[in-house]
Amino acid sequence: MDSPSHLSHSLPSGATRLASIEAGGSKFNVGIGGSDGVLHTQAQFPTRSPHETIRDLIEWFDAQVAKDGPLSAIGIATFGPVDTDPNSVTWGRLGPTPKLSWQGTDLITPFQSYGAPVALDTDVNSAALAEWRWGAGQGCARLCYLTIGTGIGGGAVLDGKMLSGRSHPEMGHMFVRRRPDDEFKGACPVHGDCLEGLASGTAIDARWGASLSKLGGEHQGHEIIASYLAQACVNVVATLAPERIILGGGVIGTEGLLSRVQAQFDALGRGYFSGFAVADIVLAKLYPVSGLIGGLAIAELARQQVPG
Amino acid sequence: MDSPSHLSHSLPSGATRLASIEAGGSKFNVGIGGSDGVLHTQAQFPTRSPHETIRDLIEWFDAQVAKDGPLSAIGIATFGPVDTDPNSVTWGRLGPTPKLSWQGTDLITPFQSYGAPVALDTDVNSAALAEWRWGAGQGCARLCYLTIGTGIGGGAVLDGKMLSGRSHPEMGHMFVRRRPDDEFKGACPVHGDCLEGLASGTAIDARWGASLSKLGGEHQGHEIIASYLAQACVNVVATLAPERIILGGGVIGTEGLLSRVQAQFDALGRGYFSGFAVADIVLAKLYPVSGLIGGLAIAELARQQVPG
Repeated sequence: MDSPSHLSHSLPSGATRLASIEAGGSKFNVGIGGSDGVLHTQAQFPTRSPHETIRDLIEWFDAQVAKDGPLSAIGIATFGPVDTDPNSVTWGRLGPTPKLSWQGTDLITPFQSYGAPVALDTDVNSAALAEWRWGAGQGCARLCYLTIGTGIGGGAVLDGKMLSGRSHPEMGHMFVRRRPDDEFKGACPVHGDCLEGLASGTAIDARWGASLSKLGGEHQGHEIIASYLAQACVNVVATLAPERIILGGGVIGTEGLLSRVQAQFDALGRGYFSGFAVADIVLAKLYPVSGLIGGLAIAELARQQVPG
Repeated sequence: MDSPSHLSHSLPSGATRLASIEAGGSKFNVGIGGSDGVLHTQAQFPTRSPHETIRDLIEWFDAQVAKDGPLSAIGIATFGPVDTDPNSVTWGRLGPTPKLSWQGTDLITPFQSYGAPVALDTDVNSAALAEWRWGAGQGCARLCYLTIGTGIGGGAVLDGKMLSGRSHPEMGHMFVRRRPDDEFKGACPVHGDCLEGLASGTAIDARWGASLSKLGGEHQGHEIIASYLAQACVNVVATLAPERIILGGGVIGTEGLLSRVQAQFDALGRGYFSGFAVADIVLAKLYPVSGLIGGLAIAELARQQVPG
C-alpha cells in the first residue's frame, strides 16, 4: 500500500489539509493530504461492521486533528451502489451492495462533525478524477477508469466532471459475449456471468483456484480474461467514446495481461473505433492509491465549492 | 414520414430559418424549421453517390432560399462513424462506414456556401438532443437515445450536452451475451455478432426472413430480440448511468416489444441498478422525425454560438 512518490511527511503549517476515506469491501484506507494530490499520512482498517469501522475511522481522524489541526474538507471514495446525489434525502447511503450489513449505511453524517465540507462519490469515479488531475489521464477530455481486482468497477470523467448524480456507473455489471471455451457459470452474486462474474479476481480464483500470475503465462486463463476485458473496453468505447481507458486493480498487474487486452481490443474492434480517435488503453499511474488520492480529489472539489 | 404535430406551414417572415439534413444509409431527409423544433417543410432523397446526393440537397436548399430567404444555420445529423470535432482537420468527414463509396466524404464544405453556421453530429446524438429539448427526454440530466432500425445506434445527452468530440458513441457495436438458443452468426459486416449484428432489423430479416411484426407475436424472435435490447439497456445503464433510455427506430415499434424489453431489463438487472434511480425505458416522442428534428436542434446550437 506504500507509494513513496505520493507519500510525504512534510506538512506546511496552516496549509490545506484534505481528508480522504477509501471505503472498500475488505478494508478502509484513510489519509490526509494536500491540494496537490500528495498524501502526507495514511492508515488502513479492516472492514468490520459499519458501527465498528466508522468508529475506527473517527478515532484516527480525531487523533490527526488533535495533532495537526482541523480538516479543510473530507472526500469519501466508496464502493457502491451508493447515492451520489447531494440533493437526495438518501445522499451518501449505500444501496443494494452484496456486503449485506452495510446496505443503507449513511457514510456522510458521521464525518460532518468535523465542520468541514464532505464530498462523496464512488471509489472508481474518484479514482478517475484523480487520474485525470494527477495521473494517467491528464489532458483527456473524456476518460474511463476501470479497476479489475476482487470486483470490477468503472468510473468516468467527462470534461473534468465525474459521471455521477442521481446514479453512477456500475461498469462491472455489464454483459459481454461468452467465450465458447469458458463454461464457468459466473461468480457475481447478483448477475452470475456479468463482466465482474467472469473476469474479476474472485471469478478467476473460483474458476481456476489461483490468480493468473500463479497459473503461469501459458495457461488459457490469460487469453480468456483478456478477451472479456477487451470486450469491456470495446463496450465502453462504443458507449462513452473516451479518449483513454485507464486500467487499475490487482488483476491487471498480471505480467503480460495489459498487452493481451490491447491486442484483443484491436482484434475485436477491427478498426471501426479508430477512425478518428484511437482510445488508448493504459495502466493507472496512481494505483494502488488511486482510490485514496481520489478521495483527495473530491475533497478538493468540495473545498473549492464552499462559498467564501 | 409525416408528423403532423411537428409540421406546420406557417412561416413568419424574418423568423429564424434552421436547415436540417438527416443523412442516412438509404435516404437523406432534409427540412427547414424554427428554433422551436417545428418543421415548416421537408423532403426526402435516396442515398446515391456522395456527388449525386449532395447535388440533390443543394438544389433543394437553393430553391428554399430563393423562395423564402437565407438560412440562419444548418444542422447535419449523420450516420457514422464521422469526425465530430470542429477543431479537427477532418471535421465532418465520414469514417470507415460499411457504406464504402461514402468513406471520407466531407459533409460540411458543400453547405458552407450558404453563409450560415454549420453544425454536425451523429444522427443519434442529434436525436438525443432533440428528444431532450422537445421530446421524451425533457428534464433529464442524463439520457441515452437508442435507435433500432436497419442498424442500431446510440447517442447521449449529459447535462444538456451531446456526448461528442474527438469521437462519438457507436452503441450498436457493443458486445452482448449470446443466447444459447440463438445460433445466428450475426449480420454486422464489421463485427459479426455485436448488438447490431444480432438485433437490428437487418439481423432479424437475415435470421427469420421477415420483420418481427410479420412473424407474429408467438414467434420466439420477439423474446430473443427483446433480450438483446434489454442487455443493451443494462450495459448503457452500467456505463452511462442515464436517468432515461429513449428507444426509437422501426424495430422497436413492433407491438409488444417495448414491454418485453422493459420486463427483461428488470429481470437481468435484478434490482441492482434501481437502488437510487430507476432508468426509465420509453419510446421516442419525435420518431420518425427524431433525426430531422435533431438537425434543427444542433443547427439552433450553432446559431446561438455565433458571436454577436
